[in-house]
Amino acid sequence: MTDLTIWTLDWVPDGPRGFVRDMRLRWACEEAGLPYDIRTIAFDDRATNHLDRQPFGQVPFLTDGDIELFESGACLLHLARKSEALMPRDDVGVAEVTEWIFAALNSVEMVAVPWWFLGLSGNEDNGLSGWMDSRLGHIEKVLAEREWLAAGRFTAADLIMADVLRIPKVRQYGDRPATEAYVARVTGRPAFKKAYADQMAHFAAADEARAPAG
Amino acid sequence: MTDLTIWTLDWVPDGPRGFVRDMRLRWACEEAGLPYDIRTIAFDDRATNHLDRQPFGQVPFLTDGDIELFESGACLLHLARKSEALMPRDDVGVAEVTEWIFAALNSVEMVAVPWWFLGLSGNEDNGLSGWMDSRLGHIEKVLAEREWLAAGRFTAADLIMADVLRIPKVRQYGDRPATEAYVARVTGRPAFKKAYADQMAHFAAADEARAPAG
Repeated sequence: MTDLTIWTLDWVPDGPRGFVRDMRLRWACEEAGLPYDIRTIAFDDRATNHLDRQPFGQVPFLTDGDIELFESGACLLHLARKSEALMPRDDVGVAEVTEWIFAALNSVEMVAVPWWFLGLSGNEDNGLSGWMDSRLGHIEKVLAEREWLAAGRFTAADLIMADVLRIPKVRQYGDRPATEAYVARVTGRPAFKKAYADQMAHFAAADEARAPAG
Repeated sequence: MTDLTIWTLDWVPDGPRGFVRDMRLRWACEEAGLPYDIRTIAFDDRATNHLDRQPFGQVPFLTDGDIELFESGACLLHLARKSEALMPRDDVGVAEVTEWIFAALNSVEMVAVPWWFLGLSGNEDNGLSGWMDSRLGHIEKVLAEREWLAAGRFTAADLIMADVLRIPKVRQYGDRPATEAYVARVTGRPAFKKAYADQMAHFAAADEARAPAG
């Protein structure tokens, strides 16, 4: 029996498949060997059907016994505390992993996602490009000098940073060879591939359930 | 003797004063009664003069004995672990505070800061307004129903959420009475006022040091 449940949507269109953020938690559990269940809320009423559990109407959220958590960063840190595969136990290691988790979300994704979002309307030079150059340039410098962000080995910090950087439009942004090698290396891990295949299969199965009876 | 050192800039122009993010750490230390020192890096070469300590060239960063931490969210969580004034000790309380810290930074600030940044060039309806409406609307609903975000009392989650929401352009965005009451309540705390006055005094003193000898 497992106590960990990752909550995601029952279905999404093709576009976001492989990128819905339950990926971050599936991947973390696979790295750590933590058993988990997947449960879902309905895509069709997602704006209002789970506000009591996720106040922005997003996924994922996580239940672990009587603990309920939203925000993928918070869930990831919670999982990291359960497994040394994701985060060392010493104070310096915890500090390094924690700062890089926040850096991925609050220094890189905070620029990359709005830039990507504004680019959906065809405008990739949308006022955030200078900021993109700066933040992605800083990460490139870091990754040119080391293989992993924290603690000298793969941790939850690499998981989340690679998940932010692997968005196709972001990955294609400029020429950043160290970052590209890093994203390829981290997403080449068996745990990523397993999580990715599982998410794709989950939504593919939902296609069949949604298809009108023939 | 104190082990905590908050690092910030030695000087900034008038605009950002009161909003430089060492505020978040000063404020947290004041709430928790944790003694701290302030040390600085030079504004003039900030893009390159501390990349070994903050890889994006930003402030603040924090030292605590042999632990060194960047990202205000990571620093805040580190301080919160040191003081029950900032975060309860039980697992459910830790989960609640942690998820709301990430929500402030990754769900609210991730929209509010790019929206604000694009608005600097005079374009406040800049493609992120719909997203602003949604995120700020969700927070308004939450704050209409409760006084504090986590654990039924003031915590580090309120500190960071109020710090994100108190940016003047964000505070003036739309009619959100519960949010306005919340921001006024949280920033009315003596610890906020002390931290704010200290940051203003720190930069004012630097004006005198920068003035050409008369």
